[in-house]
Amino acid sequence: MLDMNYQAILDHIYTDIQPQIGVGKVASYIPELAKVSPAHFGMAIVDLHGNVYAVGDANTVFSIQSISKLFALTLAFHLQGDAIWLRVGREPSGNPFNSLVQLEREAGKPRNPFINAGALVVTDMLCTRFTHAENALLQFIRKISHNPDIGFDEAVAKSERNTSDRNSAMAHFMKSFGNLHNPVEAVLDAYCKHCAITMTATDLARAVTFLANGGALPWNGDAVLDKSSAKRLSALMLTCGTYDAAGDFAFRVGLPAKSGVGGGIVAVMPGECGICVWSPALEETGNSHAGSLALEMLTNLTGRSIF
Amino acid sequence: MLDMNYQAILDHIYTDIQPQIGVGKVASYIPELAKVSPAHFGMAIVDLHGNVYAVGDANTVFSIQSISKLFALTLAFHLQGDAIWLRVGREPSGNPFNSLVQLEREAGKPRNPFINAGALVVTDMLCTRFTHAENALLQFIRKISHNPDIGFDEAVAKSERNTSDRNSAMAHFMKSFGNLHNPVEAVLDAYCKHCAITMTATDLARAVTFLANGGALPWNGDAVLDKSSAKRLSALMLTCGTYDAAGDFAFRVGLPAKSGVGGGIVAVMPGECGICVWSPALEETGNSHAGSLALEMLTNLTGRSIF
Amino acid sequence: MLDMNYQAILDHIYTDIQPQIGVGKVASYIPELAKVSPAHFGMAIVDLHGNVYAVGDANTVFSIQSISKLFALTLAFHLQGDAIWLRVGREPSGNPFNSLVQLEREAGKPRNPFINAGALVVTDMLCTRFTHAENALLQFIRKISHNPDIGFDEAVAKSERNTSDRNSAMAHFMKSFGNLHNPVEAVLDAYCKHCAITMTATDLARAVTFLANGGALPWNGDAVLDKSSAKRLSALMLTCGTYDAAGDFAFRVGLPAKSGVGGGIVAVMPGECGICVWSPALEETGNSHAGSLALEMLTNLTGRSIF
Amino acid sequence: MLDMNYQAILDHIYTDIQPQIGVGKVASYIPELAKVSPAHFGMAIVDLHGNVYAVGDANTVFSIQSISKLFALTLAFHLQGDAIWLRVGREPSGNPFNSLVQLEREAGKPRNPFINAGALVVTDMLCTRFTHAENALLQFIRKISHNPDIGFDEAVAKSERNTSDRNSAMAHFMKSFGNLHNPVEAVLDAYCKHCAITMTATDLARAVTFLANGGALPWNGDAVLDKSSAKRLSALMLTCGTYDAAGDFAFRVGLPAKSGVGGGIVAVMPGECGICVWSPALEETGNSHAGSLALEMLTNLTGRSIF
Repeated sequence: MLDMNYQAILDHIYTDIQPQIGVGKVASYIPELAKVSPAHFGMAIVDLHGNVYAVGDANTVFSIQSISKLFALTLAFHLQGDAIWLRVGREPSGNPFNSLVQLEREAGKPRNPFINAGALVVTDMLCTRFTHAENALLQFIRKISHNPDIGFDEAVAKSERNTSDRNSAMAHFMKSFGNLHNPVEAVLDAYCKHCAITMTATDLARAVTFLANGGALPWNGDAVLDKSSAKRLSALMLTCGTYDAAGDFAFRVGLPAKSGVGGGIVAVMPGECGICVWSPALEETGNSHAGSLALEMLTNLTGRSIF
Repeated sequence: MLDMNYQAILDHIYTDIQPQIGVGKVASYIPELAKVSPAHFGMAIVDLHGNVYAVGDANTVFSIQSISKLFALTLAFHLQGDAIWLRVGREPSGNPFNSLVQLEREAGKPRNPFINAGALVVTDMLCTRFTHAENALLQFIRKISHNPDIGFDEAVAKSERNTSDRNSAMAHFMKSFGNLHNPVEAVLDAYCKHCAITMTATDLARAVTFLANGGALPWNGDAVLDKSSAKRLSALMLTCGTYDAAGDFAFRVGLPAKSGVGGGIVAVMPGECGICVWSPALEETGNSHAGSLALEMLTNLTGRSIF
Repeated sequence: MLDMNYQAILDHIYTDIQPQIGVGKVASYIPELAKVSPAHFGMAIVDLHGNVYAVGDANTVFSIQSISKLFALTLAFHLQGDAIWLRVGREPSGNPFNSLVQLEREAGKPRNPFINAGALVVTDMLCTRFTHAENALLQFIRKISHNPDIGFDEAVAKSERNTSDRNSAMAHFMKSFGNLHNPVEAVLDAYCKHCAITMTATDLARAVTFLANGGALPWNGDAVLDKSSAKRLSALMLTCGTYDAAGDFAFRVGLPAKSGVGGGIVAVMPGECGICVWSPALEETGNSHAGSLALEMLTNLTGRSIF
Repeated sequence: MLDMNYQAILDHIYTDIQPQIGVGKVASYIPELAKVSPAHFGMAIVDLHGNVYAVGDANTVFSIQSISKLFALTLAFHLQGDAIWLRVGREPSGNPFNSLVQLEREAGKPRNPFINAGALVVTDMLCTRFTHAENALLQFIRKISHNPDIGFDEAVAKSERNTSDRNSAMAHFMKSFGNLHNPVEAVLDAYCKHCAITMTATDLARAVTFLANGGALPWNGDAVLDKSSAKRLSALMLTCGTYDAAGDFAFRVGLPAKSGVGGGIVAVMPGECGICVWSPALEETGNSHAGSLALEMLTNLTGRSIF
């Protein structure tokens, strides 16, 4: 793919996607997210040589929300290896309706680390390891995105924390099964901070290049994960990374990806590049509408997916 | 991957897998399957040049069971294109417990074509198109496996038909929602015949080479599916092809695959080859125990998966 | 309650209920039921001395539908005693959504004999006992209602049979668990005939007097059930007799009752009388709207309920 | 029933029940309950003339646990009338497995006030009305049991509070739907105190006499509830008062009742008396084993139930 002209492809996508920008609904469960304009669209590709290709609002920061689940998982996986799978599964969740039932049937073990229940368990692991899990995660993200300036949006964090009754319910429920080791309040504090990290599409595209590079940071070769683990994490993104639309997303786009309700989606082209697209208006599934379409265009235009 | 010595790799796997052969339980819900010895193990790779690599019982016929769902889906997709998705979804099913509930919640539309409910709908499509759906599917399989001698095991088909109360329940249930157009009895007759087709691992490895080849049969270039559809079908195999272990299978093996309770698993290495492994003793998930491990060894040894 | 003037009370109810007649929706899943005018209202009380009190259309025949479940259960209980509870439970079903899940969780044993699944099991018991279960039930109903002219509406029975996919689904599902002993087709044939029995409100009020009379037919003392069993059956009617509104019905009306989607409801005032009200327009719960209100008026006016 | 010799009947029951005392398991989720000897058995009847009949440990205090739900509901019903039904249903819950799913499907409205979720909502109503809901309930119970000395077991309350993750989960979940108005912590504090009230069987039998007396305290005629509401509350006890065994309990015993995991069960014989039995060893359903049997004996010996 050395001859792939990513900038030309992004420009092409940017033109074609215009009518789709703003279609859907911006997340509104907290006022801070509701304020974001649906007119944004940014997309960035960072290849393994460090080249950056970008269009639109690729350098505007936004709330990464559930994309933080990918980074928290990576950090926990990095620290504890396969032991993490004793406490969280690797299967798609089926549908949202069942989440609590499944927790009940499966004795407090969430289906996967990308649903809220699973991310709470992963956060709990980080809370056990670090006095300030949110700072540890921030440092880690700064490192893998090669940007020391990444930070939290405190207003978003606070607002998330004040509307976290559903997450509290799940956390208490898992605690009743013994699958949460730290106080519920502490885990929720960290979790809400994680969701409130702000990054640009370019930051995020770079932050996932290690997954396209066999687990190592392309600019210095530092191993975040070993090669096998990096592949496995990508597999998990494909089967579970885009809420209850993972099957459809794999079918249409065919790339490992993780989305957030802030409108961001990161994706990985193994051996080639990290990708991020951001557009705040969401489909009912919680995935960015224009973002999903842009990634579909990308694999159609390049003729490349993992399949 | 021109320099990949598949025969050496298969030989290596065959040696290492010996202690795992027979671990698990042979399917026993019908006597004909229960009679099969758990000591079998065969594995075959057919590359896009037509080279065949094989070990063990790769040329012994066995009951393909749910692998037929992949072929029935391919035929329906070939005939009707994306219209099939109006009647069957593309999402992982979550867990077996919920299958009927999900059918109820989703008004009779099965989650995907690889669970029984979905395969019944696909079979119903074929029943509408052909007077004898089972013969049409057999012809199609003979064509894509390049073997005119493939046939049914009539004893298995009859036995399946006599123990199909669960499938009858689902078929009637979907019919009550209008998502089954032919008489339940006719659909079940065809469905049970599909499951009772017998093939060798070599036949099956060849039968999926079109998926590794952009949808075209490697030996004559005939398009079974267009390139995009072939990729999409592979994506569906990855997310939904191995029962409720699809997430775990993707994580461990990382290849699009479809399994059957006869102990067979077909897999696809895009751009390279079709693969089939067969060993009748199953894990609790319904997937071949030795077969799953053999595929995991294959991707570890080759350093290749789709991720 | 010797001084209770039932006729005056019924007349009073008949006047007050007028604005409510026709509110709701007549059952329409088969054309034969949809044709019935929503303007009907009839109510009858038969006391233990054989006195009949009636208003409105109390002598018009209608389709008893699920009220037949009460009679089928009585006959099975009469014949087999407490052995029937090995195959069907005695707990409210919670809600319709769960019926199939609960069957799955409870290995094919329906929650109670008044939901369709339970009534199918009861019918299966009768099919085992009688060559023509439907005729046996008809004879039994003729006896307990003291009316040899009661019969089937063949058009309703046929129409029911042609739209019984949901019931087929449940029957096959239970058969897969071994909790249906006769062929599904035979059980459904009988079941649909049971639902298609036609009676008047007066017939039905008389047919439940044995439950108010310690299990014995008031006119000749013949024991249909022993005293304890009659009380127990009444308890079951109270907790499970009015679909998913049983709790609300007990709260508002406070009498053991069984309803049908034909618009009939039978109720029992222990030690005093059998009651039946009929009005075809239904609430969403499947219970007659005017019928439920009329029974609520009855217990309010008499100051009597079982509580 | 003036000639019913209750003392003789209780003596008879006390003799016959001996082999059943201790069969089952004492509740052990908190150490304080686990310490109670399974050898206890006490039973008391208080009739509407104030006569007390008692056997065994009828004057030993025990933890009333979920029986407090009946009193909290009575107080809320007394204060707010039918408005309470906007926030809590009146239907049996089906089964425990579904509680959270049902909360989800029904948008945070619990099925009935006798399941934990429902009692939390009722407690929330009391928290809105009173600065110290637990003291208000205690005063109310002292009044209806005519015993100013009733109090809390602080050790039990504290222990309950420390193991309330499941209840926290449900409370947060309902709060996320807007069906909990006070802080979760405050509601749980009050709720755990309610469960920790200690009373004797005699106290409890007297405390439910108002339900047998048309809603009025027999000794002074003060109306706790109006006659219709008292009947309705009794109906609710019958359909929902004994956990997931309500159908079976109604079938076997046939009296409105409410049980607690401390081993107590209160029951009402309308127009006649209040009843309480206590024996700590429980059936799997959470109801006292010997207690349930003793009540069944009572209705068999007296030939009286509500049916």
